[in-house]
Amino acid sequence: MSKFSITEKTEITRLAKRGVYDKETIYAILDEALYCTLAYVRNGQPFQIPTGFCRIEDKLYMHGSVGSFYMRELAEKKLPVCISVTHLDGLVLARSAFHHSVNYRSAVIFSEAEKVTDQEELYKALEVFTNKVQPGRWNDIRKPTASEWKATMLLSFKIEEASAKVRTGPPLDDDEDYALDVWAGVVPIKLERKDPLPDESMKDGISLPPYLK
Amino acid sequence: MSKFSITEKTEITRLAKRGVYDKETIYAILDEALYCTLAYVRNGQPFQIPTGFCRIEDKLYMHGSVGSFYMRELAEKKLPVCISVTHLDGLVLARSAFHHSVNYRSAVIFSEAEKVTDQEELYKALEVFTNKVQPGRWNDIRKPTASEWKATMLLSFKIEEASAKVRTGPPLDDDEDYALDVWAGVVPIKLERKDPLPDESMKDGISLPPYLK
Repeated sequence: MSKFSITEKTEITRLAKRGVYDKETIYAILDEALYCTLAYVRNGQPFQIPTGFCRIEDKLYMHGSVGSFYMRELAEKKLPVCISVTHLDGLVLARSAFHHSVNYRSAVIFSEAEKVTDQEELYKALEVFTNKVQPGRWNDIRKPTASEWKATMLLSFKIEEASAKVRTGPPLDDDEDYALDVWAGVVPIKLERKDPLPDESMKDGISLPPYLK
Repeated sequence: MSKFSITEKTEITRLAKRGVYDKETIYAILDEALYCTLAYVRNGQPFQIPTGFCRIEDKLYMHGSVGSFYMRELAEKKLPVCISVTHLDGLVLARSAFHHSVNYRSAVIFSEAEKVTDQEELYKALEVFTNKVQPGRWNDIRKPTASEWKATMLLSFKIEEASAKVRTGPPLDDDEDYALDVWAGVVPIKLERKDPLPDESMKDGISLPPYLK
């Protein structure tokens, strides 16, 4: 299996056994996420932006308005960025307060922005992004007009320096605590899509598309 | 209603109408979140850590091991940090690709770490944190021993510079697009707690506590 090299920035030192560097795991964590958090530095001060994204091969793509100050800044100044994604999978309820934990899968990528100027790459990324958020959606909707495309800025981020951290399984208590009369286990956490709510302004006679059922 | 002052760092310039500065909204966003993302800067490079936290009045608390390098660094060097929390509430499916969006509530705080040395503050914060993750849990479990407390580092972050961004409601399409034969609406997204999974190593005869039912 293909792995990312461990660098000074991506080396996991706390609970190192939870560190994961293989591409398959990291890409799966990224692809399941509906948003990421992007961090960058301005005048020594860290900033964070939660934003939608998609992955195509070894690049992440994020889009925004051409008027977005921070996006222009990222691309023009080639600022170093840190991108993170976290899935919370469960609350790990141990017998002792000390061993309480959570099950999670998180990924962190260090990269820098490249402004996408190739039209085909722009078109492709927006289609992949839309279908990632809602599979099947792109073919059903009005595609961007020339002026809408022009108002859209797309940044790409190469995934070269990346790591993940994963915890799964039951609580791990101190040996003597297994004798305590305390319920222990995991409360699973799931991000779920609920029944779609139709827009009240919708034209009569439009039924729910199969991909939303 | 009490509001945070808008500063150069917290002023929302893109889609400014989504900006929110009142404490009630920002505290509610923070209190609902099971984790936050903390960003800081080392040698000009942004780093991010997803981590559990709780709020007591106007402070956020995060704990970790006394061996945690980044936590010690944050406290000792008084590094500026950016803390963010995001709730994704829905996928907003418009008639046009361009107006697709998401409903969300996000909060961003700029602060710096203070190492908590007061024992009562430490005890209180861990209790509040544990009961936030799982209401009712603290009274049920083995409390930390003296050596466990000693192994725990607690950082506090004053909430003074904060903003939130919120989108709610249906898609907003261009006037002429309302005539299109495209289903439009919102797919609600919810982070849900599922049925607790008991630890297989649990002592016989322990029933699920009422706060987990």
